[in-house]
Amino acid sequence: MNPKLQWLRNTMSSLDLQGLIISNPVNVRYLTNINAEGILLLTRKENIYITDSRYIEHVHSILTLYDEIIVYDIKDVSKEDYENFFMFCENVGFEENYVTYAKYKEYIRKYKINSLVETDNIIEKQRMIKDEEEIKNIKRACEITDNCFTHILSYIKPGMTEKQIADEIERYYKENSDGLSFETIVASGENSSKPHAVPTDRKIQDVDIITIDMGCKVNGYCSDMTRTFFVGEVPEYVKPVYDLVLKNQTQTTDDFKDGASTRLLTKMVENDFKLNGYDLVHALGHGVGMEIHEAPYINYKTDVSLKENMVVTNEPGIYIPGKFGVRIEDTVQITKFGCINLTNSEKNYIII
Amino acid sequence: MNPKLQWLRNTMSSLDLQGLIISNPVNVRYLTNINAEGILLLTRKENIYITDSRYIEHVHSILTLYDEIIVYDIKDVSKEDYENFFMFCENVGFEENYVTYAKYKEYIRKYKINSLVETDNIIEKQRMIKDEEEIKNIKRACEITDNCFTHILSYIKPGMTEKQIADEIERYYKENSDGLSFETIVASGENSSKPHAVPTDRKIQDVDIITIDMGCKVNGYCSDMTRTFFVGEVPEYVKPVYDLVLKNQTQTTDDFKDGASTRLLTKMVENDFKLNGYDLVHALGHGVGMEIHEAPYINYKTDVSLKENMVVTNEPGIYIPGKFGVRIEDTVQITKFGCINLTNSEKNYIII
Repeated sequence: MNPKLQWLRNTMSSLDLQGLIISNPVNVRYLTNINAEGILLLTRKENIYITDSRYIEHVHSILTLYDEIIVYDIKDVSKEDYENFFMFCENVGFEENYVTYAKYKEYIRKYKINSLVETDNIIEKQRMIKDEEEIKNIKRACEITDNCFTHILSYIKPGMTEKQIADEIERYYKENSDGLSFETIVASGENSSKPHAVPTDRKIQDVDIITIDMGCKVNGYCSDMTRTFFVGEVPEYVKPVYDLVLKNQTQTTDDFKDGASTRLLTKMVENDFKLNGYDLVHALGHGVGMEIHEAPYINYKTDVSLKENMVVTNEPGIYIPGKFGVRIEDTVQITKFGCINLTNSEKNYIII
Repeated sequence: MNPKLQWLRNTMSSLDLQGLIISNPVNVRYLTNINAEGILLLTRKENIYITDSRYIEHVHSILTLYDEIIVYDIKDVSKEDYENFFMFCENVGFEENYVTYAKYKEYIRKYKINSLVETDNIIEKQRMIKDEEEIKNIKRACEITDNCFTHILSYIKPGMTEKQIADEIERYYKENSDGLSFETIVASGENSSKPHAVPTDRKIQDVDIITIDMGCKVNGYCSDMTRTFFVGEVPEYVKPVYDLVLKNQTQTTDDFKDGASTRLLTKMVENDFKLNGYDLVHALGHGVGMEIHEAPYINYKTDVSLKENMVVTNEPGIYIPGKFGVRIEDTVQITKFGCINLTNSEKNYIII
């Protein structure tokens, strides 16, 4: 059986789950490489994937015998088959954070399950730790992002609009990767003070500040990077803010390591910002993988201990409403003794 | 109060619902024009929208006094406030087809609701009948789609790839509308035999068949149109299939009217296809509005009676596996005595 399914089955045993219904297509793809519409059932003895005629061919081309997954066309699965899948299972798990209430009730009816139980993100937790192949894909997506950033620095000219710049990034990613991992943020001038700005028709000025938050996908895996940079010159009033963000981004990079508490990491940055009269208005970071935002989340709401081979972002930012903002973000891989930057674009003042 | 909220409140009364929690952002936007992250609560006496600081400004700029919606910043809503919202309500409805099982349990806890009940798509059903403003937006999206199709016919040249054509459609829509309403299908040659084909690097030949399924958005409302057309000439073996699809698409257009049964409409087309040795492998059509696929669905699984001012697609198709396919689709508005085509591109043989 493939190692991801095997790991999941071990976790299921420890939780006394004899069956599992996996409906979230991201989780199905993670466990099987199948990128289709369908449902994955882990029964006592078998791994079963049910899909429809549109995808059967694709699914067979992806799976090997080694996966030990039986594929059914949905039109060949009878009412009795559904009732038999989990017949001798006491507890069957489902994804309560993905499955709607209506589907939950349908599952109980269709599979005749006595005890359909919540699984508290069992697969999302497994996904936090990346294997070699996953890290390779994220690394590649990060490299392409560094290259795209280099390209875009030479592309930007005063007079261009934020939208034009975002379109060029999308064009570059379409040509060199599997496309955007999220809608690019290009925020210039006072727009840079909005952490979640959407590209507008504002034109780049001769002296300007620009924040770009960008990422792409490779084989289903994402990259995520932000840089704030300057056109013409770095205004004096921006320098102390930029330096403070950069100092914290660099320092925490040393502290992002196996065993570090996400709550403490966030607190450290927040304290330093507060000492200087600023606030940390959004999370310090988040996991990156098949989804651009996934567990673990680095904030003080949840306290998670970072582990080797987690891949997360480190993205402190300061925003002065109506004036400007600075954010510096890298995607990093956690190791036993620190972390490895997977995005490596320049972080000192960039002036174009 | 705005008429959409008033209509919904009347339906709630008839269903003995004293409260309603609306979480689906599409439904919130439909009822309020608010395009943000938040939750809309209809309590016994008030309409309440809870959002966060990022959206407060936008929300206030959208709403008027006439809407009678009270806006809260989520950070100002206390535990007690949540418990008070539905205090004297016996039945509070929620969207069981949108809300996850985890959220359902959270709602019960947070709002202290005794009876949180399923509402069987109460808002989606209301959304089936479009008002004047909604139809105006869909009409505009359909006009732009007709124009885009005219443009693309003169743009396509042998040697171009399906992807290039899809990119040009996206570029056109970005320039002239609020963007794509779904990922464009450009399927040429044998790819046209797949109803849900994704654009590939296949190059258009000197003699070729191309199916394009396309649509855009205007003020949140979608258009949807498909044409199958030809490069060089119409192969003789395609003509009978094309003629059969066109005949059925045109005939049913006369039958798409107030009172028509979606099941019977589907049956009629299926019977005629079967008489000629073919199958109807997908639904005959679907509602179009804020979502590209919405109620009513025109197939034989559900029997809905079409009503005046529903907007639906009429899209029969025949697919010969590994060879070619033909689909002709219009977006139409249902009236008392028939229907009005909102997309109006040529349906007789198009040869470029």
